[in-house]
Amino acid sequence: MPRYKLTIEYDGGPFVGWQRQENGRAVQQAIEEAVFGFTGETVAVKGAGRTDAGVHALGQVAHVDLTRDWAGKTIRDALNAHLRPEPVSIVSAEPVDAAFDARFSAIERHYLYRISDRRAPPALDPDRVWWVSTGLDAEAMHLAAQALVGRHDFTTFRNTQCQAKSPIRTLDRLDVSRAGGEIAIRASARSFLHSQVRSMVGTLKKVGEGRWPIRSVGEALAAQDRTRSGPVAPAHGLYLAAVDYPDADDTPANG
Amino acid sequence: MPRYKLTIEYDGGPFVGWQRQENGRAVQQAIEEAVFGFTGETVAVKGAGRTDAGVHALGQVAHVDLTRDWAGKTIRDALNAHLRPEPVSIVSAEPVDAAFDARFSAIERHYLYRISDRRAPPALDPDRVWWVSTGLDAEAMHLAAQALVGRHDFTTFRNTQCQAKSPIRTLDRLDVSRAGGEIAIRASARSFLHSQVRSMVGTLKKVGEGRWPIRSVGEALAAQDRTRSGPVAPAHGLYLAAVDYPDADDTPANG
Repeated sequence: MPRYKLTIEYDGGPFVGWQRQENGRAVQQAIEEAVFGFTGETVAVKGAGRTDAGVHALGQVAHVDLTRDWAGKTIRDALNAHLRPEPVSIVSAEPVDAAFDARFSAIERHYLYRISDRRAPPALDPDRVWWVSTGLDAEAMHLAAQALVGRHDFTTFRNTQCQAKSPIRTLDRLDVSRAGGEIAIRASARSFLHSQVRSMVGTLKKVGEGRWPIRSVGEALAAQDRTRSGPVAPAHGLYLAAVDYPDADDTPANG
Repeated sequence: MPRYKLTIEYDGGPFVGWQRQENGRAVQQAIEEAVFGFTGETVAVKGAGRTDAGVHALGQVAHVDLTRDWAGKTIRDALNAHLRPEPVSIVSAEPVDAAFDARFSAIERHYLYRISDRRAPPALDPDRVWWVSTGLDAEAMHLAAQALVGRHDFTTFRNTQCQAKSPIRTLDRLDVSRAGGEIAIRASARSFLHSQVRSMVGTLKKVGEGRWPIRSVGEALAAQDRTRSGPVAPAHGLYLAAVDYPDADDTPANG
């Protein structure tokens, strides 16, 4: 059966998260129903990451097996037609090798977290940024964040519900930058623990407010103690921005 | 009575427009009610521009007279508290000279129009951009737009309901640029006619699709004939971005 890679954008607001659950509608379910509407097939759409309720995606990736060969753009357009009016969009669909697995083939995951720290509430995107209303020191947050980059035991920044076997992860990037009244936090790693990004963001916010010293973030990490994390930042500021895979052929784009 | 300048951001979606009307809730009304909630005064909040139903603002400007002297930030925070949960935010409030008039003192108005021309629908901001789904030639649109810059009779691009005495306006800037799957159109002038920006955008879209030649835009302008305009682009892609005023004192910022 031909396998297809889907790149997906969604507004996490109305969903219980990526993965099917008993208690409400999941993004995965919306896409599986769109596939059924298109081909009549009952399929499993498997995602690269299980975003929590309310978390958005700019570039979630999933794979799905269909019985027929289709052009990628046919699948993209047909699924988008069936998804309407839900806030889920198939940005691209492409045939991939049967060995491709959206979750296990991924070599890097990129998250973006948006904070608005201006005094006035965001009228145009209240459900897209975490509005904290008091100015944050983005430079201090960036300095503090560097203590988390590298290979560490992230027990402090791991949800107690996390099912991963090991709390050890390698964080490749944790950059904090400001553009106007908004702070962007960009985190990249091969994989993350449950709530890791939001726990790190909530901790860095304490530093940004001047309540915690810069060194406290590295100390909290070293403690390997969940109670040392700052509060978990809200879901609606978080975006799964992109997922990277090894190039099928290694020819450079301008090769 | 002390006068205050308000800079205002809003989501135009739920409103009938800036100005009070019989048929629904206006942004002006929401702010006037917030002022009443704060000071108990029944006031008129006068805006720089009357945005239509559905049009957003990043930097609408208005003035209001209150009986008491307040610090600007007190007004800003109090009005924002009273405005909740409406999608209207007072970005700043500041005392101004009694001669300041948001509408008549304005020397330049800046609008932004956002078009998404990628094939996949925008899941995260469907009510913030005009999604046209077929790729547009932004360079051709920009070239065509330059025929509109300058002092002209804009009858072609003027809503038949427009109440302005003269159809002559000076368009200082009409730039079309692309960033990824999105096209931004930036228009600046001391003042605009009713529906002028949306009429120009709808016309430029025809050029972007390749349906109208570049020269047709200048020809439509020269015809001074409303029937020669392209269709009026939808309101939800348009933003009143900023309004400029003469500096009260002319000291340069780095003076």
